[in-house]
Amino acid sequence: MNGRRSYVAGLLGQGIKSSLTPEMHEREAARQGLRYVYTIVDLDESRSDDQRLADLLAAAVELGFDGLNVTHPFKQAMVPLVDLVAADVDAIGALNTVLVDHGVTTGHNTDVTGFGRAFAEGLPGAALDEVILLGAGGAGTAVAHALARHGVRRLVVIDPDGDRADRLRHTLARGTSPVEIVTDPDGGLTAAISTANGLVNATPVGMAAHPGTPLPVDLLRADLWVADIVYRPLLTEFLRAADERGCRTLTGAGMAVHQAADAFELITGRVADRAAMFRDFDELVAAEAPDAPTPNAPPPQHPEERIH
Amino acid sequence: MNGRRSYVAGLLGQGIKSSLTPEMHEREAARQGLRYVYTIVDLDESRSDDQRLADLLAAAVELGFDGLNVTHPFKQAMVPLVDLVAADVDAIGALNTVLVDHGVTTGHNTDVTGFGRAFAEGLPGAALDEVILLGAGGAGTAVAHALARHGVRRLVVIDPDGDRADRLRHTLARGTSPVEIVTDPDGGLTAAISTANGLVNATPVGMAAHPGTPLPVDLLRADLWVADIVYRPLLTEFLRAADERGCRTLTGAGMAVHQAADAFELITGRVADRAAMFRDFDELVAAEAPDAPTPNAPPPQHPEERIH
Repeated sequence: MNGRRSYVAGLLGQGIKSSLTPEMHEREAARQGLRYVYTIVDLDESRSDDQRLADLLAAAVELGFDGLNVTHPFKQAMVPLVDLVAADVDAIGALNTVLVDHGVTTGHNTDVTGFGRAFAEGLPGAALDEVILLGAGGAGTAVAHALARHGVRRLVVIDPDGDRADRLRHTLARGTSPVEIVTDPDGGLTAAISTANGLVNATPVGMAAHPGTPLPVDLLRADLWVADIVYRPLLTEFLRAADERGCRTLTGAGMAVHQAADAFELITGRVADRAAMFRDFDELVAAEAPDAPTPNAPPPQHPEERIH
Repeated sequence: MNGRRSYVAGLLGQGIKSSLTPEMHEREAARQGLRYVYTIVDLDESRSDDQRLADLLAAAVELGFDGLNVTHPFKQAMVPLVDLVAADVDAIGALNTVLVDHGVTTGHNTDVTGFGRAFAEGLPGAALDEVILLGAGGAGTAVAHALARHGVRRLVVIDPDGDRADRLRHTLARGTSPVEIVTDPDGGLTAAISTANGLVNATPVGMAAHPGTPLPVDLLRADLWVADIVYRPLLTEFLRAADERGCRTLTGAGMAVHQAADAFELITGRVADRAAMFRDFDELVAAEAPDAPTPNAPPPQHPEERIH
């Protein structure tokens, strides 16, 4: 009888108190005249077993949530807890969005679609014969699947944790796009870069809490494209060095905004104004720039957080 | 860092899918430019033990709720589950509002304050030497406590369930206002009315699902004031008969709106525009008038629901 629909969504994770996603969702909803609130559900480390996640998800459904974003460290653990999963979630083994529709929960992964769209828009026509992926964690896995969908032929995965690289290989093998995965390239990173078209940083290096670059910048050449998924700061030391060498570059803003826009569209069934969301995002990131520190909001500690 | 505050509230109860309270809250919030969503949490009968209520409350806190309204049949059961209670909740043994502030839950009862304000505004100067209260359930108990605060001297409580009337006497004895409670008047209802100043219907009789009047209307006299807490329909058969006999009358709109406005103010810390909320309420009730039935939204079954 009320005529108007309201929406409640939230972000479930750890160390996410300073996430920009709630503000991105709520601003877009306000533009569209929707009643929409997006909460932060920051779970402390001590109580986050699967049963607790299952209970929280059930409670969110019962309390009227329309959707949840899920981030580190729950993206994998949440997969078996939802009723249905989109095909890419099944392949990747991780989700970042849970939709609730009449009590039925469905898992999606807008990190994959978000990076894919950011890549297509920000680096159109970029060659994908051989790409170097730095970091095989949650964010790196989403990037790898997005690149696979976009037709990457050979993906060189660099991660000091060999198990993570192997798991990534395993999930890609379950996808529909054939990709050659190399985790220990002959001649090492230097040789791999010499034949690569581009590279993606999916490690936390470059964030305020992890200064530096994920590889020696002398290895960069002008004909490489370079993407970073770090967005705090937007222009990382790595991207700045790539710019100086004449590389085409892509900041982390695209993945951050498009994953949020994709989740917003799933939750509301409406088309997001992505240009406006980019403007909001730029404003929000500028407001928390290093010269305007927020002492009560420490920078995220995990690479996966960067994409929220 | 986000600058703006958002609010999530909800109504916890049974048989409440057609409640007008979410729309009242959300419209008032929209007028004030707030991001505010109010959900319906309708629990089925089979799973509503105290442990489940406690779990849901804990989950609501964790998921970012700022407040909950609580209605039939959980108003009593919720009292021991909150961290703190307002004084009137302690006296009455029932709450209808739970505030969440930095993880601490506090119980309030805006049914009491809501009826009190409705009474003071709608029947100013009404004599309170002797009042007849029809119905000693949850709503009747809230009405009795409000009348006690307003100085009623003698309250004649009519309820076929003697235990309920005794419980009401017990809770009033714990309050700070001395009231003489009569549950079995000499000479019965007829004699009691002959000396009363006014009466309040706090039974469900008069709702669409409970047609009729709570007492023979021939007992009404022009010098009685008559209040009804039923608001579906607004003008009950009982109030219509009272109007015809020249009684001062008060519809259930006042309690319904003021309990919502009081809860809104507790949750947001802002002053509600009560005049605008009354206009909204009238519009919402008119939209669901009996000549515009909503077959999927059956009328509430419990007297307590009427005040939401």
